[in-house]
Amino acid sequence: MVVESNATTAESVVTPERILQLGLGFWGSKALLSAVELGVFTELAKGPATEERLARALELHPRSARDFFDALVALGVLERNENLYSNTAEADMFLDRMKPSYVGGLLEMANARLYSFWGSLTEALQTGQPQNEAKAGGNFFETLYAEPARLGQFLHAMTGLSMGAHKAIAAKFPWGRYQTFVDVGCAEGGLPVQVALMHEHISGGGFDLPPAEPFFREYVRSFGLEERLRFYSGDFFADSLPQADVLAMGHILHDWDLEEKKTLLAKAHDSLRDGGALIVFESIIDNERRENSFGLLMSLNMLIETPGGFDYTSAMCEDWLRDVGFRETYVEHLAGPDSMVVGLK
Amino acid sequence: MVVESNATTAESVVTPERILQLGLGFWGSKALLSAVELGVFTELAKGPATEERLARALELHPRSARDFFDALVALGVLERNENLYSNTAEADMFLDRMKPSYVGGLLEMANARLYSFWGSLTEALQTGQPQNEAKAGGNFFETLYAEPARLGQFLHAMTGLSMGAHKAIAAKFPWGRYQTFVDVGCAEGGLPVQVALMHEHISGGGFDLPPAEPFFREYVRSFGLEERLRFYSGDFFADSLPQADVLAMGHILHDWDLEEKKTLLAKAHDSLRDGGALIVFESIIDNERRENSFGLLMSLNMLIETPGGFDYTSAMCEDWLRDVGFRETYVEHLAGPDSMVVGLK
Repeated sequence: MVVESNATTAESVVTPERILQLGLGFWGSKALLSAVELGVFTELAKGPATEERLARALELHPRSARDFFDALVALGVLERNENLYSNTAEADMFLDRMKPSYVGGLLEMANARLYSFWGSLTEALQTGQPQNEAKAGGNFFETLYAEPARLGQFLHAMTGLSMGAHKAIAAKFPWGRYQTFVDVGCAEGGLPVQVALMHEHISGGGFDLPPAEPFFREYVRSFGLEERLRFYSGDFFADSLPQADVLAMGHILHDWDLEEKKTLLAKAHDSLRDGGALIVFESIIDNERRENSFGLLMSLNMLIETPGGFDYTSAMCEDWLRDVGFRETYVEHLAGPDSMVVGLK
Repeated sequence: MVVESNATTAESVVTPERILQLGLGFWGSKALLSAVELGVFTELAKGPATEERLARALELHPRSARDFFDALVALGVLERNENLYSNTAEADMFLDRMKPSYVGGLLEMANARLYSFWGSLTEALQTGQPQNEAKAGGNFFETLYAEPARLGQFLHAMTGLSMGAHKAIAAKFPWGRYQTFVDVGCAEGGLPVQVALMHEHISGGGFDLPPAEPFFREYVRSFGLEERLRFYSGDFFADSLPQADVLAMGHILHDWDLEEKKTLLAKAHDSLRDGGALIVFESIIDNERRENSFGLLMSLNMLIETPGGFDYTSAMCEDWLRDVGFRETYVEHLAGPDSMVVGLK
């Protein structure tokens, strides 16, 4: 038996486990996306359920329902006590469709669109061409803005998704120095609402395409902020931007190519009063381009989704801001992969 | 400014970041799969390269090559020093096609097949039906075994994938008590080779379908073990298994339904001499079904790939082993998500 004992040193050999976990990581990811699509978390928000009851409510075939639910337990989004499944606190807050904090709209979109489009990543890398609806002559934004129900869901998902960044901007930016604020590409108005809630002296609103207006109005009214926050309707390439002390652009610039990015930044500079500030925020890539994997992958998502969009480092953004005339710039981390780059006019 | 400072407590709010990272986890996973498909690691195994040289060698469009390479840096599979990209030690060992330790064949298969089939996970969960080639009337195993080049690559990928488990079995099982060993569903013979290398008194070989024979012979000969290890040709449902002191079934049982699993276990019991042992190993699910997410997701992969296959806990396997006549059973962890369940006749 001595042979066997000595031989256990063979175990310390390098294994391919981490590589395989990453390469097969789409399994766990797709399991969560299907769970959101099927409404697992919305169902369990009503109360804990047995495998049988949950499978029946979701109309799942009995063959793999238990494996599916237990995989979600192992992935940390469900809990199981005795034979009852329930949501984790995190899943209950963010994945129950009935709660205002729901972010599953983004995951529903990822499940219905991005998962399959990313299947063509290799072709995207070889051709530099988008792999979404555009490949078949479609246009995601046109389709999205043409269907109010779908648009509302999408805009609401964006609000949930950016909540951490919005609260951090409301907390970290020196709002005391300014009076008026407009968020450019505001969707439902998640950022103006957070800023207005935390800073009573601020008024302004949000700028977006006309179809976003009813969703903005409804969201702002739900906080009783309709006296201080209004909707500015327009197209940020065709029209000029509203005048304000502070403007923001969140998850906007990465959709566009370099020339378009600079056009938008110059328009913002034009609309700010002297002494005003522009806040650019999204998953800004670290300057060394080796830490923020989410930001780098988001840039590949812009390859999949847009003709020329890309994500960028804070150093690149600061250069562009100075190029279009901002006198001073600085960078501050917000939440998760998001940072803001601030330009002072 | 006091208002801003106090307000930073808003940051400690729960964020949806972990859920979004999991839900969008397919981005990083697909980036690695595309990198393997494109031969990034095989190219860099020749030596470090600049972005331009690497993009040219791989015929990538310049638009997103740098984001792609830097995303692979952030994901921990490439390194970058100055402007030169190179493989991590792990990627160089397991993702260079020219090395015998290459496991990319499995990831190539996942990229070419499983990624898109998993896109139909929701339908699989609703119907209980496979979502692979079978959906269009095809048969993966028949197609695989009909093309020798593709089969060779697949079998070799299985060897690399299971190397950690094979070395652990060679080290942990009490081989001193036995003389002969046959691995059932042996592919190239990775397990018999590891056992024979570590235990000079062991002889035997591997059992698999006839098309696997040339790959087994070549692999075994590359270790100079052809005198001790032979190929047993057959179909484990149509034919009886070879007689031996020890039999093994690795990553076999999960392909089949409960009745088929028990048929295979009973056949193994029949072919063992009294006092012999059967080693069952794969990503055995923990008995609590809440830790081994890989094993649980592998079971969903069996839903995607087979009409009735599923993964199982060690307790389930021990029950089946006793049902077919084994007098004693035990469980031992091997490497990563793999464990073995041993039945003693």
